[in-house]
Amino acid sequence: MLMAATPKTVLNNNWAAATQTFTAVLNPFLTAQVDADVAQQPLHDAMTYTLASGGKRLRPVLAFVISQLGSAALSAQDFLFPAGAIELIQTYSLIHDDLPAMDNDDLRRGKPSNHIQFGEAQAILAGDGLLTLAFSWLARAPFNTAVRIAMVQALADAAGPAGMVAGQSQDMADTGEDITDTALHQLVANKTAQLITGAAEIGALAGQLTVSQRAAVRDFAWALGQAFQIRDDILDVIETTAELGKTAGKDAAEHKNTYVSFYGLAGARQQLQAALMAARAAWTPAVLASLGFAAMPAVLADLIQQLEE
Amino acid sequence: MLMAATPKTVLNNNWAAATQTFTAVLNPFLTAQVDADVAQQPLHDAMTYTLASGGKRLRPVLAFVISQLGSAALSAQDFLFPAGAIELIQTYSLIHDDLPAMDNDDLRRGKPSNHIQFGEAQAILAGDGLLTLAFSWLARAPFNTAVRIAMVQALADAAGPAGMVAGQSQDMADTGEDITDTALHQLVANKTAQLITGAAEIGALAGQLTVSQRAAVRDFAWALGQAFQIRDDILDVIETTAELGKTAGKDAAEHKNTYVSFYGLAGARQQLQAALMAARAAWTPAVLASLGFAAMPAVLADLIQQLEE
Repeated sequence: MLMAATPKTVLNNNWAAATQTFTAVLNPFLTAQVDADVAQQPLHDAMTYTLASGGKRLRPVLAFVISQLGSAALSAQDFLFPAGAIELIQTYSLIHDDLPAMDNDDLRRGKPSNHIQFGEAQAILAGDGLLTLAFSWLARAPFNTAVRIAMVQALADAAGPAGMVAGQSQDMADTGEDITDTALHQLVANKTAQLITGAAEIGALAGQLTVSQRAAVRDFAWALGQAFQIRDDILDVIETTAELGKTAGKDAAEHKNTYVSFYGLAGARQQLQAALMAARAAWTPAVLASLGFAAMPAVLADLIQQLEE
Repeated sequence: MLMAATPKTVLNNNWAAATQTFTAVLNPFLTAQVDADVAQQPLHDAMTYTLASGGKRLRPVLAFVISQLGSAALSAQDFLFPAGAIELIQTYSLIHDDLPAMDNDDLRRGKPSNHIQFGEAQAILAGDGLLTLAFSWLARAPFNTAVRIAMVQALADAAGPAGMVAGQSQDMADTGEDITDTALHQLVANKTAQLITGAAEIGALAGQLTVSQRAAVRDFAWALGQAFQIRDDILDVIETTAELGKTAGKDAAEHKNTYVSFYGLAGARQQLQAALMAARAAWTPAVLASLGFAAMPAVLADLIQQLEE
């Protein structure tokens, strides 16, 4: 049994330290658990390839940090199945996104994307396998059945056809079309903010936060998710392929609707600032006081700071 | 609130009558619930297209019939979310199976397959959406949280990368290769028997069957699943495209490993008989007596009879 970091330590760290603390436990778990659960090759290899390709683990780390806000003592170990399930979903979405019929990207995190490495059929199946396994992992998490079912509901709704998959569908359907700002905001919310918010909600469920604390977490994560996608849109324009680890300039080349295509670079930067401000504002003095904090926990303040472009 | 059929009535009917009774409630539910849950078009339309394309509903009807074996009073209405979740999984698997990178079939149930109708990107996403929505539906089912979590576990494991997805992966990897009979049996078990067994298990959980009753249900469903796939292999050889509603003779054309390619047509027919015998044998006198039956319920005996080719 690994020792848990003291909750307050993680919360008072910067984001990089929190990530290091949690991924030191999460990353070996992800690989070992897929080894234990998936015997079929090349399915196992295709699933592991993208799962272990150096993702930043933003969503599971965020969920873990949020879980530490509550008063319940909850170790990193306790939270591996839920955090892992979130990362399985994120990984599946990247694999399916990169497919030729979707964004058609040969490169992901600086390496050949999954279908380049394993062929399209195994890449489709690796995505299907990761997506399905996520719910098996939630079912096995060491929480009471009511919490587990609430986690299943949160993840399925965030990732599903009224969440992330709706965002992808809209993205595909609207590419090359003129859309309204309302449609753009909905696209971004579904494509990115939904899963980030679902992850935060899973952390809040594990940490047994109160209803008003959970509402603040959702508002925070929703704004954070928008900031994250707007920043992604900006980076696609200003960074090189080497810096991005994926093909740069693809959005414009494919006439994607992005914050940059809609508002221009300066406008997108303003929108990013507005989203980060909303993320900070979600932590009202009353909510912070109820959690025993005078100001936003350092780790979350630092995460917001990291998204300043 | 719809009236439930009296349990004994469904069990004493033939399979067609049981199917008619349950699908009269299930089919409208499937469409209405997807309407309620999925606003994004064309995602909604692509999901609904294959879901409402005239599937036989074998798996959800089987699950419902099994749920009626227990002593608990359980209406068709009570079982819609679990039954629907099973059919969502079945439907997603057909859509992804038909993709050009997979089995590349333009025809499904006598109609253009999903990617022919909506394009590959939306077909991939429709599959992803159906798969994810299944777990949202299980989370909302009117059973206690322990039963719901057991259903999530059963469905995720049956459909996932140690179940159906493993079967698909093996099918893709082994096509055109010489494989052993052990590998063939594993392929068939994963591709087809796993989800049929998972469906039956969900019925058994809903019906609160005992441990030994559930074991019999699993043995029965496992043998039934094998019979179902063997029969499918046989029909691919002896029926026309019009009779099948999908392209006939594809297995041989694509050098698929099937019971017919491995054992020949006569040998496959023997294997089918053996699987049907095993399905009957699962219902031991002791298990039947514990359920209050002297012989296998008529509806299950008739289902087995239907699979006689």
